Amino acid sequence: MLVQLDDIVERIKKGKKFLIIGHIKPDGDDISSVGSLTFILRRMGKTAEGCIADHIPWFYGDLDGVSEIKKLEDLRNYDYDTSITVDASELSRIGDGALLLKNGKPDITLDHHKTNVGFGELDFHDSAYAATAVIIYEIAQKLGVEYDLKMANMNLLGIATDTGFFKYSNTDSKVFRYAADLVEKGANIQKISSAVLEHQTLKELKLFSEMLNTLNVDMNGKLAWAYVSYDMLERNNCTDEETGGFVGEIRSIYGVEVAILFIEWPKNQVNISFRSKNYVDVSEIAVYFGGGGHVRASGCSIKEADLKETMDKVINKTKEFMLKNEQLAGLN
Amino acid sequence: MLVQLDDIVERIKKGKKFLIIGHIKPDGDDISSVGSLTFILRRMGKTAEGCIADHIPWFYGDLDGVSEIKKLEDLRNYDYDTSITVDASELSRIGDGALLLKNGKPDITLDHHKTNVGFGELDFHDSAYAATAVIIYEIAQKLGVEYDLKMANMNLLGIATDTGFFKYSNTDSKVFRYAADLVEKGANIQKISSAVLEHQTLKELKLFSEMLNTLNVDMNGKLAWAYVSYDMLERNNCTDEETGGFVGEIRSIYGVEVAILFIEWPKNQVNISFRSKNYVDVSEIAVYFGGGGHVRASGCSIKEADLKETMDKVINKTKEFMLKNEQLAGLN
Repeated sequence: MLVQLDDIVERIKKGKKFLIIGHIKPDGDDISSVGSLTFILRRMGKTAEGCIADHIPWFYGDLDGVSEIKKLEDLRNYDYDTSITVDASELSRIGDGALLLKNGKPDITLDHHKTNVGFGELDFHDSAYAATAVIIYEIAQKLGVEYDLKMANMNLLGIATDTGFFKYSNTDSKVFRYAADLVEKGANIQKISSAVLEHQTLKELKLFSEMLNTLNVDMNGKLAWAYVSYDMLERNNCTDEETGGFVGEIRSIYGVEVAILFIEWPKNQVNISFRSKNYVDVSEIAVYFGGGGHVRASGCSIKEADLKETMDKVINKTKEFMLKNEQLAGLN
Repeated sequence: MLVQLDDIVERIKKGKKFLIIGHIKPDGDDISSVGSLTFILRRMGKTAEGCIADHIPWFYGDLDGVSEIKKLEDLRNYDYDTSITVDASELSRIGDGALLLKNGKPDITLDHHKTNVGFGELDFHDSAYAATAVIIYEIAQKLGVEYDLKMANMNLLGIATDTGFFKYSNTDSKVFRYAADLVEKGANIQKISSAVLEHQTLKELKLFSEMLNTLNVDMNGKLAWAYVSYDMLERNNCTDEETGGFVGEIRSIYGVEVAILFIEWPKNQVNISFRSKNYVDVSEIAVYFGGGGHVRASGCSIKEADLKETMDKVINKTKEFMLKNEQLAGLN
């Protein structure tokens, strides 16, 4: 049932023992929201445990408090009276975390995704929020909870990461104002940005350099693509995890509207990431190839596929979509 | 003479016709400070012209108002009663802009560099400010000037760029709070970040790839350096302008404390950029070689120099500084 934030706050006041569940493939906002809400509840004298039923990328471990988020196994016998999911748009997004739910649905869901379906007893979701961590901060304010250093850093993490470190169009004045509050409470944005962004390894940079050698542009410079083959990954002792920021770098080329990165991993599977800047809805292209995502960032996976053939097919289809989008945008 | 910000504000109130001068090799904070202060003064009904006596990188031209900043030639016959330099730590930093000064010194200097020497009639400099653009914002507040959209964007530009888009350790609560104010006045951080950060060209990426091939690490991974030779620039049809973000990429390697980039440009001149993460004061190293800058970002230029010899010399000296800093930080 969709409710107001004040209803959530009232419900939280009634609980004594909480279970906070994040989503699989956790990002900064997810980790931040699980951690912050757990610490806020503990600070209120309540019992609370945070759970993410998936691997947390290693570099988040440098941030204080992240190691307190538990795995599924640690909480099998944990008894609670109130369950809350954060940053998950539907039940399947919490993965095996759902096994901890008592009657198949959480008591409260908190989210900022536009695609949220509302799957809890009480649901709060509003895509006007730049991050779920912004919702968490407002809840803490309404509850009158005092932050310590660890809480301030943990809450700022999600606000920073989901706004691309204050660069994306969702960076509104509220984002900046809460960031100011959190820095006043002791948060250190340099430490957060260093942990999240400055963890490139030498082999990653070598792989990136090889990827750049495959870079191509078309459509008068508006379409750019590159690939990372299975052989390139093997040669550099990398997996697809090392290719995280690559597609963003292709997108950042001046004049590029659509960026595509093809990654062959594992052998004979091609994972494709699409990014756009201003007017092409790349979620449409991804959906066409059986994937999904957002208007400006989407992806799909093609199994039993040859890299070169897949590239030809996807690039041709993308050109068609781009021409259609340009016509819609009145650019042609 | 070093004065308080209120003294500067009083002096500004007395002036009628202003000349604002930025520094050579202009960066975002310089352009922002020249532009913002010019527009603030005009908004007060005063006459004002902004001048940068050097080439402004092309991508800033996508931002509203930048094209109103004039070249030296346009202002040779401009009569003014008050000259103000912004973001320049010493007279030589304004280059040929000094030719416009009536008695060899500006009436007012505004700066946030630690290495500022104070070279005006009235000087305000304080390295506690993250950007000169932050000083400019406070002056506007003290003057009670209402911002329009163009002014808000122009002022936010410098706050954003000199804090590495809200990532560096100088990003204090004031930075976030003023950014919130400016967004409320209509500034669009996405537009600024896109213009400043998403303008890579293909030749730049190819050059970057070549630079990565020169990458070296030492001091247990804490020191990393790379170079861009004159030949590499020529071969890729680039100038040193295309190397803007390179040193930041070296700094972003996991475990690196100090990053150094050597750029040979023009032939037989080596320009050196230093960056650090946590405890090494790289301004000291730059000053040792006749340059200057900040604790976490500094630089110097060595003329009539051989690239390889200069690299050896600078890397050895940097290692000495690092060992000293580690001892001071209690890391050894």
